Amino acid sequence: MSDGLTVPFALAAGLSGAIDSTGIIIIAGLAEIAAGSIAMGLGGYLAGKTEMDHYNSELKREYDEVEKVPHREIEEVKDFFANLGLSEEMQDQATSEVIKDKKKWVDFMMKYELGLEKPDPRRALKSGANIGLSYVVGGLVPLSPYFFADHPIAALKYSAIITLICLFIFGWLKSKYTGINPWSGALRVTIIGALAAGAAFFVASLFEA
Amino acid sequence: MSDGLTVPFALAAGLSGAIDSTGIIIIAGLAEIAAGSIAMGLGGYLAGKTEMDHYNSELKREYDEVEKVPHREIEEVKDFFANLGLSEEMQDQATSEVIKDKKKWVDFMMKYELGLEKPDPRRALKSGANIGLSYVVGGLVPLSPYFFADHPIAALKYSAIITLICLFIFGWLKSKYTGINPWSGALRVTIIGALAAGAAFFVASLFEA
Repeated sequence: MSDGLTVPFALAAGLSGAIDSTGIIIIAGLAEIAAGSIAMGLGGYLAGKTEMDHYNSELKREYDEVEKVPHREIEEVKDFFANLGLSEEMQDQATSEVIKDKKKWVDFMMKYELGLEKPDPRRALKSGANIGLSYVVGGLVPLSPYFFADHPIAALKYSAIITLICLFIFGWLKSKYTGINPWSGALRVTIIGALAAGAAFFVASLFEA
Repeated sequence: MSDGLTVPFALAAGLSGAIDSTGIIIIAGLAEIAAGSIAMGLGGYLAGKTEMDHYNSELKREYDEVEKVPHREIEEVKDFFANLGLSEEMQDQATSEVIKDKKKWVDFMMKYELGLEKPDPRRALKSGANIGLSYVVGGLVPLSPYFFADHPIAALKYSAIITLICLFIFGWLKSKYTGINPWSGALRVTIIGALAAGAAFFVASLFEA
């Protein structure tokens, strides 16, 4: 959502410094929203699916290894306990408890040897759809003034005001939710948006049409 | 890099379907590259810094808790071993070994209670600079034909060919490096690029200037 607000906003701001027609800016903005929402949304979905595939193939491999080279896998469990700083005797005892149940043993290897948590199978679809949709919604916010204003620079003023307010609110809520200081999180997202727009404005104005 | 190739490529492709001037497409492309590289690069840098701050504040909190409420922290270590499936007796013995050394104890809590690895302090800067720079380099690839061709549609043909080849190579290398099947990884990245460009072309052509 924050990328969806920032990049279309900055693109429209940049074009406002170089182009006289709000129509062209709207076309460019919509093309960017279409491109960004598909690239990010589909990218997010496929990354989630890849993670799922990777988990399943590693799971299968661990089951095979526990079957075929149990002595090596036992050594790996013991190494884990050794790394925790347990004594030699304790390592052996703890290991013998872990390997009593094959499913538990494999789950243990997945989590502590490979650091893999079982991914939620619906997460890929949900996160892809989420990213794609928020990019569309976020992108329409900075673009909306260009539908009403006569001149790009006039639209840019409204666009900057509503986008920076939205970025601040969004940054505040997201930081609150993830346990970071909400004021500094909100400021961070807002400053990134303003800098990206400023840079785009500057670059585009060098090539004024 | 893959976003840096995909989004400017799709934006330029979209505009090629709606606008007759390569000059405007170049301006839009450069504005998008400036916006995207700052939004992604600065975003990546600040996300890394936030992660570092988060780790340090949690580390301080764990040291405080080990000092002030040791019985509760001991219980948490024991819970961890209980979750591994160890017997009651083994839980107590393993716990008493972990808590012998305060630094080891805190490191144990950070890693296994909170699942936090110590971030590399230079990673934020490196990853931010990396993302920003690859966005610029990646974005100039699909845009370059527009500097030479007379008409957007002619430029689009070259742009599509070189960008899709680059996406395929890049997807192949990245998949190889991360241990995914390189052919399916390469295909995935290439298809996302083609779909994003197709969608942008379609959306923009609805609003032909």
